Amino acid sequence: MLAKRFLVLLLSVSTTFSLLAQENADAFFIKKIHDSALTEGRAYDWLRYLTKEIGGRLSGSPEAAAAVEYTKQVLDTLGLDSVWLMPVMVPHWVRGDKEVVRISASVMGSMDLKAVTLGGSVGTGMAGISAEVVEVQSFEELEKLGEAGVKGKIVFFNRPFDPTQLNTFRAYGGAVGQRANGPSEAARYGAVGTLVRSMASALDDVPHTGGLRYRDDLPKIPAMAISTNDAELLSKALKAGPVHVYMETHCTQLEDKLSYNVIGEIKGSENPDEIILVGGHLDSWDIGEGAHDDGAGCVQAMDVLQLMKRLNYQPKHTIRCVLFMNEENGLRGGRTYAEEAARLGENHLVAIESDRGGFTPRGFTVDGNSHLFVERLTAMQQWSPLLEPYYLHIKKGGGGADISPLRAQNALLVGYEPDSQRYFDYHHTAADTFETVNKRELELGTAAILSLVYLIDQYGLK
Amino acid sequence: MLAKRFLVLLLSVSTTFSLLAQENADAFFIKKIHDSALTEGRAYDWLRYLTKEIGGRLSGSPEAAAAVEYTKQVLDTLGLDSVWLMPVMVPHWVRGDKEVVRISASVMGSMDLKAVTLGGSVGTGMAGISAEVVEVQSFEELEKLGEAGVKGKIVFFNRPFDPTQLNTFRAYGGAVGQRANGPSEAARYGAVGTLVRSMASALDDVPHTGGLRYRDDLPKIPAMAISTNDAELLSKALKAGPVHVYMETHCTQLEDKLSYNVIGEIKGSENPDEIILVGGHLDSWDIGEGAHDDGAGCVQAMDVLQLMKRLNYQPKHTIRCVLFMNEENGLRGGRTYAEEAARLGENHLVAIESDRGGFTPRGFTVDGNSHLFVERLTAMQQWSPLLEPYYLHIKKGGGGADISPLRAQNALLVGYEPDSQRYFDYHHTAADTFETVNKRELELGTAAILSLVYLIDQYGLK
Repeated sequence: MLAKRFLVLLLSVSTTFSLLAQENADAFFIKKIHDSALTEGRAYDWLRYLTKEIGGRLSGSPEAAAAVEYTKQVLDTLGLDSVWLMPVMVPHWVRGDKEVVRISASVMGSMDLKAVTLGGSVGTGMAGISAEVVEVQSFEELEKLGEAGVKGKIVFFNRPFDPTQLNTFRAYGGAVGQRANGPSEAARYGAVGTLVRSMASALDDVPHTGGLRYRDDLPKIPAMAISTNDAELLSKALKAGPVHVYMETHCTQLEDKLSYNVIGEIKGSENPDEIILVGGHLDSWDIGEGAHDDGAGCVQAMDVLQLMKRLNYQPKHTIRCVLFMNEENGLRGGRTYAEEAARLGENHLVAIESDRGGFTPRGFTVDGNSHLFVERLTAMQQWSPLLEPYYLHIKKGGGGADISPLRAQNALLVGYEPDSQRYFDYHHTAADTFETVNKRELELGTAAILSLVYLIDQYGLK
Repeated sequence: MLAKRFLVLLLSVSTTFSLLAQENADAFFIKKIHDSALTEGRAYDWLRYLTKEIGGRLSGSPEAAAAVEYTKQVLDTLGLDSVWLMPVMVPHWVRGDKEVVRISASVMGSMDLKAVTLGGSVGTGMAGISAEVVEVQSFEELEKLGEAGVKGKIVFFNRPFDPTQLNTFRAYGGAVGQRANGPSEAARYGAVGTLVRSMASALDDVPHTGGLRYRDDLPKIPAMAISTNDAELLSKALKAGPVHVYMETHCTQLEDKLSYNVIGEIKGSENPDEIILVGGHLDSWDIGEGAHDDGAGCVQAMDVLQLMKRLNYQPKHTIRCVLFMNEENGLRGGRTYAEEAARLGENHLVAIESDRGGFTPRGFTVDGNSHLFVERLTAMQQWSPLLEPYYLHIKKGGGGADISPLRAQNALLVGYEPDSQRYFDYHHTAADTFETVNKRELELGTAAILSLVYLIDQYGLK
């Protein structure tokens, strides 16, 4: 009896020791990943090229084509097992040259506002649109005004971000409906145009573009965003008396174009059929350089593979980097990718997306509709002691737009979460430039993602 | 017996409920603090004035005097119980107009380097200094070179930051000895001047100033910093052959000047004699605007009192905001403050300093030499569930330079810890401007500090 007890004790001690040894080995390798990302990472240089040499990369543009070519060529140099392009038909919207929002008459006089057309908007024609402005904060207010208050006017949606939201993406979520659905909602009551307050955390002079969704059963009216400072100014003018605005934009929707998702992978040694995907989206809006949104996510995903090779790490699972095309105005890349995965019967264990900027790491948010979701999240959270030294948490939360179509295939969806405070200073603006990305913050993001990939690859999700 | 057990159970349930109720009340108030900081904070506007209207505020300068006047006037408007100035005699060093570091001869030709004189340096005189350069990475290397290798030369200290340090302050700690003690160490072997690689995380063109400490028993030789890019360039030139450099700087040390610590407080209702101090330093280097270092810390400390009044929070302990003068080149404000506290027999329960920039919050580091230190740290860490929703940790670590003299009086020293990745892009440079501070990040810092002050005020440190 005593002998048996001793044996049990001995076994338990030895298990404990080997568990500890494994945990130390993991801690050591995660430190190595961080060291390597901070000294041998290539993400920052790749981002410089994507932003300063290529620039804004809206789907269908020459820049988007150049970005496909550039990232494919970079992946080709990394010694991966395969690199390929996946054809995707994308919408092709072009902004045109001139964008004007002018207060043509008000008690405060006339002045030009800092404005930018929303992606997907129809143009105003050469004559532009001149109309009186009516301001609302919500669709409820719009409905109350009804046709009597809206018909023939320009509707100005002016609901600001809620500054008390700790995560700025929640504030964005509370305001972005105005931009996406406002134009059709205004058209429902006979509006001739819409202006929207920029989706921004700060009061500044930078207008933010972004996509809109016209309803097919309603007239399409032009839609433009004005800077938050100018939204305040316009609102002030409206409080003082009637305001007339002149809008002019020459954007237009062309025929769909052939483009590509860019893909590279390292084949798994033990479970080659189970895929761990890391990705971002290669397209961006046209008015900035697409640095935080989402050049950062692309170069981080590419650097995950680069560092894996540099660290001589042979994964058990297949690790695939996917640079999705057309997140911003169609999600065609994400949809096509999931369709292809279904057609080929591929098994995506996890898909990790980095599309919240190249800021300092906070952790990961995890989503999924598999019946195994809670179990998998709990399994991942057991790695917290290994990730906490790097300030990385694992919480329930969103994955990412491009990977969301993989939900139906039971992939676990993981969103890399950097700090969110500065994101909506740059998002969809001319200010989203390379200079606003800090090299170390970007590299620590790569290290965070690779650390998680390593743990999933080592232990799966059981 | 059953009745007694029931009673115990009942009591325990009721205690649990009231503990939970208290925890909920605390969580509610901490949320209110954050909401208030993000919507009614004044820190950002005060910082704009300190940086854009006043600018760099080196001790003894007119700008430092203006900053004393401005912050005193602001505190006077907050309805505090007292506001006063504490006289401090400060060193008065002035930079002079012209600063030149020129490669006058090398195989790469001649060129000017991006350079700035170190604070406290002696000048070169009108003739400047021309000498051959010798590069070292450490004092050990310098010692090996000895007089034979150093005499009559300019010593170039070129040890870079260790990029693998997760916290950039550790990388700074590993390099800053070259700047602080390098000039005297070089003079020990007969050097005529020193150049130091800027204390920076990044490779860029921005030179970083900072203080040096001359030894009284060694000659004082001029000392200047060059940008990290130019340090790389100079090092490359030295690998190719001999390099001669011309240094010119007209800085000079004037007589000490009268200046002030700026202080405001709200008297405690229950323990007025126990002080909870929040502070930053009002002086800055002269070449930038002193935005992150340490305008941010000052306006956060001021805003802690402002928000307390706005929230109608009557503290039990005395809450004192102290804006210390002369952290950068003398620490006279911090020393004078501690001497005064000792003279008056004041009891500082805790001193919290914000002097690591206005970046997004990470938490607090706690230090102290009281025999109660471990106990107090443990007590504070029990608040973690209340602080974790705001990503705030409490860890052992440094307090802050200005509050460090209070250590001998058994104050618990707490350093507010924002994210460190970008700090050494701006520290002690012309790039430390208002524009590099994000309003929300700054405000969340205020909220973090006020939340901690609230918990200490409510529960003490037992």
